[in-house]
Amino acid sequence: MKEVLEYLRRHEDRWVADLCDYARIPSVSAQRQHAPDMRRAADWVARRCIGLGLETTTHETAGHPIVVARTPEASPSKPTFLVYGHYDVQPPEPFELWTSPPFEPRIEGRNVYARGICDNKGQHLAHLNALEAWLHSGLPLPVNLVFLIEGEEEVGSESLYEFLPRHRAELACDAVVISDNGIPSLEFPALTYALRGITALEVRIDGPARDLHSGLFGGSIENPAMALCQLLGGLRDSHGRITVPGFYDQVRTLSDYERTQLARVPFKEESYRALLGVTELFGEAGFTTEERRTSRPTFEINGLTSGYQGEGSKTIIPSWAKAKITIRLVPDQTPEVIAEAVAAHLRRLCPPTVRLTIVPGHGGAPYLVSPEGPQAQAALRALTAGFGHEAIIMREGGSIPIVSAFKRHLGVETLLLGMSLPDDNPHSPNEKFSLDAYAGGMRMAAHLWPELAAAAS
Amino acid sequence: MKEVLEYLRRHEDRWVADLCDYARIPSVSAQRQHAPDMRRAADWVARRCIGLGLETTTHETAGHPIVVARTPEASPSKPTFLVYGHYDVQPPEPFELWTSPPFEPRIEGRNVYARGICDNKGQHLAHLNALEAWLHSGLPLPVNLVFLIEGEEEVGSESLYEFLPRHRAELACDAVVISDNGIPSLEFPALTYALRGITALEVRIDGPARDLHSGLFGGSIENPAMALCQLLGGLRDSHGRITVPGFYDQVRTLSDYERTQLARVPFKEESYRALLGVTELFGEAGFTTEERRTSRPTFEINGLTSGYQGEGSKTIIPSWAKAKITIRLVPDQTPEVIAEAVAAHLRRLCPPTVRLTIVPGHGGAPYLVSPEGPQAQAALRALTAGFGHEAIIMREGGSIPIVSAFKRHLGVETLLLGMSLPDDNPHSPNEKFSLDAYAGGMRMAAHLWPELAAAAS
Repeated sequence: MKEVLEYLRRHEDRWVADLCDYARIPSVSAQRQHAPDMRRAADWVARRCIGLGLETTTHETAGHPIVVARTPEASPSKPTFLVYGHYDVQPPEPFELWTSPPFEPRIEGRNVYARGICDNKGQHLAHLNALEAWLHSGLPLPVNLVFLIEGEEEVGSESLYEFLPRHRAELACDAVVISDNGIPSLEFPALTYALRGITALEVRIDGPARDLHSGLFGGSIENPAMALCQLLGGLRDSHGRITVPGFYDQVRTLSDYERTQLARVPFKEESYRALLGVTELFGEAGFTTEERRTSRPTFEINGLTSGYQGEGSKTIIPSWAKAKITIRLVPDQTPEVIAEAVAAHLRRLCPPTVRLTIVPGHGGAPYLVSPEGPQAQAALRALTAGFGHEAIIMREGGSIPIVSAFKRHLGVETLLLGMSLPDDNPHSPNEKFSLDAYAGGMRMAAHLWPELAAAAS
Repeated sequence: MKEVLEYLRRHEDRWVADLCDYARIPSVSAQRQHAPDMRRAADWVARRCIGLGLETTTHETAGHPIVVARTPEASPSKPTFLVYGHYDVQPPEPFELWTSPPFEPRIEGRNVYARGICDNKGQHLAHLNALEAWLHSGLPLPVNLVFLIEGEEEVGSESLYEFLPRHRAELACDAVVISDNGIPSLEFPALTYALRGITALEVRIDGPARDLHSGLFGGSIENPAMALCQLLGGLRDSHGRITVPGFYDQVRTLSDYERTQLARVPFKEESYRALLGVTELFGEAGFTTEERRTSRPTFEINGLTSGYQGEGSKTIIPSWAKAKITIRLVPDQTPEVIAEAVAAHLRRLCPPTVRLTIVPGHGGAPYLVSPEGPQAQAALRALTAGFGHEAIIMREGGSIPIVSAFKRHLGVETLLLGMSLPDDNPHSPNEKFSLDAYAGGMRMAAHLWPELAAAAS
């Protein structure tokens, strides 16, 4: 390993120059005028792969090209890992909030500022750099690698979702590695081992056939807006627990190991509160804020609509009231079971004075890789070695849909190894990437393959 | 009285011809193109008054003219009553739903169909016809009368509200008589002796500084839409009672006389349910539907707004949630006291995790004339004599703001003596007026003045 790390250190300036070069391409997938830049970015990353001697194919799609590059002469005796990344970036607007132009990378201290630099150009480039170090070290790479770099992550990955089932054999692997997520700080390199899932529904309460005069009829029939408030309001108790029977039945309890690990990162309540702009935090009793937002299911009202919403007042009993709801799921909840439990409970509670309609929406399963399994432990060792601090495990509150797609189509787990920091501003002006995170990420990527190979044997 | 009634009977055809003549004028106050018709209608009613020998003035206003006509040689020994009506009508649209053109009165059976015929041309014309009968009878009219006929009732009576305080002396009277409301049927002529009041407020709950990602943050802070639902949902218990402390303190209990009288009109639950299009009726336990919609206060949500309301779903914790609310008040509740009681209760219940803002809206006091007082009893005798059925007393659930204005500026009560029937379609296509109600209304109006004079002495 010494040779590999030494190579990385020796070429540090080139890694930064390359990164700036890549970040100069305004590969904004959402904006039609950048179509030529999308092609340039795909070509850039393909050339980089070809330069490493990888077998590289740029696949045309209905949208932007997908680059697939693999280490040559794959050995069936070695495990195979797929590194996923994306060369497309978020739109840079509003320009006026950028300190320097978004596609003219600016180095200040140990940060590089540019659109897309931490989402996700820096991270997959770190993996390619680490591979270059391996290939030049003279040491045999203990794994087969496939790089899968797409150009539509910021716009929904439609082409990739079509591509995956048609290229199952080509993409077959033992696990997927993604570095497109965050870590709490350089002192806490982290493996994200769980993501929340989701199930969406719309609840509609119908009362009178039309809006009615609240003076002439008020008091003699149910008000659909009040019925909706009572129905939804009753779904959460004063301890922040969801009252739907069976709601928590499938929830996998956090192990002592997990709780201890999750608690290692210092949580600053005051700054979290200030960041969100709330007067006080609130959540399910018996859990920390970090556990609440990552490891516990939620019932969130995303929108309410009923009756008159304009200026002043209108004295009506509204004919109907509606709520949009998403429920965040945690392992091992399943969207179907929870959606049905909530619907059944609402149907049970709904008074006979109004009509209830439930429209189910999209669903996505939560995701969990056992943090104590051999691959996760290998990843943690690589993170610790790469960043020089003992790695932690963490959960994320949101979903990364591509992870479920890899599971579905390739039948494998994904290891989420973060490199970006909380103040990196992805999707916002003045996006940046820490050069220390870049260097640590490269070292982590270099350590990862022997660790994973050892774990596989 | 025989002579008066005989005169009314003898001229029946003329009353109908006159009514049709009046109804032919498309005096739509809301529509600018009908300004000349507004003038024609004011002139029509003024000429009718002049024809009776009344001292008649057409007052110009910033809007449409106000006609004031008084019986000549007012005697200070007789009581004075003011008859209020309005010559303006609702817009006739949608034309295609009318069986015959709205301003070409059509007689079918015992009904006349035309826009404005029961709101309010027929009723104040009935009063004028009854006065003609008195004046031709040779009998001394036992009261002084002032007719006040305005042209902006359907658009808010703005000119009249300016007119009243400036013509206090001219309009001084012992009571106001209005026939611009309904009766349950010809068999149940009715005095409306109470109206509900109102107080409006807007409730806003603010949470995070902006809409937040429900995956990343959901579970760790309060959801303002959920807080609003729980806050409002808790304001009404399962018995339909409002839970605000003190809410019912000022409510005047229905007397046995009132409950018995209110219960005289047969209530057909099935047809009421079908009319409103609800699956079941609902209201405060211990009260009939009629009592609930007229004699009990309510808390109605008129509108709800929060977060995402478009197609599909958006996974956010909304930054804020808002509700528009109107509370219907009954005698002797006061808008100020109830608004403050509700606001204080909401402030008490609101959790510290969100910020509550209450914006007070308009208010209007409820109205009550004692149904057992001498004027009310006189009115009931006139109704009974006019319609040939024992009159009832009733309450209305809505408000008639002009009643409060008369009380405020002239210091007198208003007697609400209805002539229109539940199927008369005011404000709707195929508005009609029953010729039997017209005839009964004229007889009632003829009986009213000696009854009120006797009650005053």
